[in-house]
Amino acid sequence: MSISQENKSKLKSLLGEERVFFKDETQMDQATFLSFGTDRTKVYVPDYEILTFPKNTQEVSEIVKFAFENDIKIVPSGGRTGYAGGAVAKSGEIVISLTKMDQVLDFDPFFGSLTVQAGMITKNLHKEAEERGFYFPVDFAATGSSHIGGNIATNAGGVRVVHYGLIRQWVLGLKVVTGTGEVLEFNGEILKNNTGYDLKHLFIGSEGTLGIITECTLKLTKKPADNRILFTAVPDFPSILELFKETHNMSLPILAFEFLTKYCLDKVMDHLHVPDPFSEVSPYYVLMEFEITEESDDEKLFSFLETIMEKGYVSDGSLAQNSRQAETFWKYREGISESISIDYTVHKNDISLPLRNMNPFLEDMQSLLSSKYPGFEIALFGHIGDGNLHLNIVKPKDLSDSEFFTQCKKVDPSMFELLQKHHGSISAEHGIGLLKKDFLHFSRSSAEIEVMRMIKKALDPKNLLNPGKILP
Amino acid sequence: MSISQENKSKLKSLLGEERVFFKDETQMDQATFLSFGTDRTKVYVPDYEILTFPKNTQEVSEIVKFAFENDIKIVPSGGRTGYAGGAVAKSGEIVISLTKMDQVLDFDPFFGSLTVQAGMITKNLHKEAEERGFYFPVDFAATGSSHIGGNIATNAGGVRVVHYGLIRQWVLGLKVVTGTGEVLEFNGEILKNNTGYDLKHLFIGSEGTLGIITECTLKLTKKPADNRILFTAVPDFPSILELFKETHNMSLPILAFEFLTKYCLDKVMDHLHVPDPFSEVSPYYVLMEFEITEESDDEKLFSFLETIMEKGYVSDGSLAQNSRQAETFWKYREGISESISIDYTVHKNDISLPLRNMNPFLEDMQSLLSSKYPGFEIALFGHIGDGNLHLNIVKPKDLSDSEFFTQCKKVDPSMFELLQKHHGSISAEHGIGLLKKDFLHFSRSSAEIEVMRMIKKALDPKNLLNPGKILP
Repeated sequence: MSISQENKSKLKSLLGEERVFFKDETQMDQATFLSFGTDRTKVYVPDYEILTFPKNTQEVSEIVKFAFENDIKIVPSGGRTGYAGGAVAKSGEIVISLTKMDQVLDFDPFFGSLTVQAGMITKNLHKEAEERGFYFPVDFAATGSSHIGGNIATNAGGVRVVHYGLIRQWVLGLKVVTGTGEVLEFNGEILKNNTGYDLKHLFIGSEGTLGIITECTLKLTKKPADNRILFTAVPDFPSILELFKETHNMSLPILAFEFLTKYCLDKVMDHLHVPDPFSEVSPYYVLMEFEITEESDDEKLFSFLETIMEKGYVSDGSLAQNSRQAETFWKYREGISESISIDYTVHKNDISLPLRNMNPFLEDMQSLLSSKYPGFEIALFGHIGDGNLHLNIVKPKDLSDSEFFTQCKKVDPSMFELLQKHHGSISAEHGIGLLKKDFLHFSRSSAEIEVMRMIKKALDPKNLLNPGKILP
Repeated sequence: MSISQENKSKLKSLLGEERVFFKDETQMDQATFLSFGTDRTKVYVPDYEILTFPKNTQEVSEIVKFAFENDIKIVPSGGRTGYAGGAVAKSGEIVISLTKMDQVLDFDPFFGSLTVQAGMITKNLHKEAEERGFYFPVDFAATGSSHIGGNIATNAGGVRVVHYGLIRQWVLGLKVVTGTGEVLEFNGEILKNNTGYDLKHLFIGSEGTLGIITECTLKLTKKPADNRILFTAVPDFPSILELFKETHNMSLPILAFEFLTKYCLDKVMDHLHVPDPFSEVSPYYVLMEFEITEESDDEKLFSFLETIMEKGYVSDGSLAQNSRQAETFWKYREGISESISIDYTVHKNDISLPLRNMNPFLEDMQSLLSSKYPGFEIALFGHIGDGNLHLNIVKPKDLSDSEFFTQCKKVDPSMFELLQKHHGSISAEHGIGLLKKDFLHFSRSSAEIEVMRMIKKALDPKNLLNPGKILP
């Protein structure tokens, strides 16, 4: 496909010369141009025609209307930190980058909410909230690059979901541009508005396939006064569940409940050259973060530790004595991904399961691997309090990378079947995008997929918005 | 319309003689029969053909399929405590009562969730949760009659929304039957499931127009250890906002932030024969409920009271010394509706507004009334921390009831226009139903209403489910 001179002029007059770029012109170097049409998946080769940088909702609407009239497919582009190919443009599309839409639009100090353009970098949103005496609690590794609009489009989670929930819970209002260029506004100034269907939630997690999120109003909260890390060794899997149950009875709010196996701990120790934090070997470890508001809360933590040791849920445990030690403890959890990826070849999966079904699933998974893929090892860790596991398969030394990945492609459907059997999800946080769309039926029924298609058709009748993503 | 003998037999063989009733047969007295097709609105006259009592999702699906084949309209019937005519059957419909669907289906002690049939009475759900060591926090006056399914279908709120949010936030999973009889299941066993559009939220607050909710999985939490009531006199409206803002900085969780005017306080004192809790007259009063976990938290409350008095946000304040006094304080807020309704004729409205826009709206509203409806007085109270006001217009003594209601029908659209101007909602909690559907456009744009119609068509192609509700 190539863009006519007339259409080029139209877009240039709409946005100005400096905010529209074409594949076949050379104002921008090719690598930079292409980077706006890809994400962290790395398995797709971007190839698209037009790159645009609108500054406001009106301009996004006009670009979409232009695309609608000319039947050009559209890929919305945010911070491009996704792992499912949701932001990949590889079929001659027009890319709408929200990068220049990063302004604060409104702040309500009474209600405690902030309205921003969707292209604001998540870390900057955190800063804007804190400068106003508030706190925005959705946080994860990619916040330095990700856009808040992309976070909403993928219903982002992160490390403190167990306390704060997913980003869905913090979205009060949205402004979106649908596939016809229509602007829909879901009022974020009011909390209670029982006037028909809550359409806003359709767009949260829709990966840009129903509309482009251009503005959002977010609920803010107050920052935890302080926190404490409790790092524990757990003797068996059922004890992890009992331990989590025990936290429900704690009077201190639990901010994180993360877990890792001995295998992961060893890899971090090897890679980061840190000592074993425990004197005896244990198969599982759980890191808990609690919010505290005063010194005396430490007593509650000691008494909690005493209880869980007495009950046998943990065999050893240590409370971080200062913020430096807290950081060190977090490293054993946060260093896993890096430690494994750098020293080993891995195949990643981000899955979720009901807590109570995790052990049976893991047993099934283990026997699948040992019977059909001997030598494959699992590095298991994650936000277990949310039912979210990062299940990384580590390549056996004697297998080539390409042979390993070929075999993993066979493991995946078998694993998804096991997930379905145990009522789990094939994608906890990362979404579906291009990467998992062929497996959507393992998590959603055909009736649901049919309803999704009808909704897609209602909001994007020409199937122009991020086409090919999510729906198989 | 009359039902053929063949169809009668079909339904009887489907449900058994004792769970299906016909208008023209006399197994059930007429008043009881009709009560299943009405709600608390009282302005509509029920008139329908068939009453059914399914016991499970499968039976609901079969009844809907029967209705679909025979083009019979359907009204889902729960606890019938609504105030918007959402459960009214007045056009020969088949009523599907969920009354016999009140069983616990599942409990997950680790995750802290309960799965029940949708016909469970809300109060019973509270009990089931507490018996399992948990707490379900959505609470309001009608929980002794309302069904949990109806609460979800209307996205119920209540008195502690400021802390716990609306019921939407507590719904993990749903099973629904669409307008074709198709069963959709949105997995409530997992918290994280980013696999396409979150359809569940469409049904929450859809007032039975998109599907019949038959089962639900609810997140549970822990019960507040104890609470304290702070009752304060506030000198002017802006101080209410400042006071609310101040609560954001409190370390104790605020469970309720309720407000009433001097007018309402007087009415409660008159009706319930209770003394003025304050020594001096004040135009506004705010009742706050805080969660406390230990005795020493009382000090925090005293210091908070000191701060807000020093800052001039409140002119007087009193902390309930015991649970009896706490109850007494709550009476000044909870007794308003009864005190006004019994002694006066009132026209009720349940609206919401951004906190910061409330005062300008109220000023506009006051000048509308004094210029066009002299003698009309406003009784104003509500969940002001959620932006939710109960705005009751009280009939002047010299006006007849019928003349008063005729005039109120003219006040409403003018008030809705003012709400629109100040970014408010015409229905905060009560929904749209039949009562407000002609005014929907004051809160939702025509583009939004069009999208709602398309979604309705996708899920209920023959427009059989609770037709005439919500959409004008």
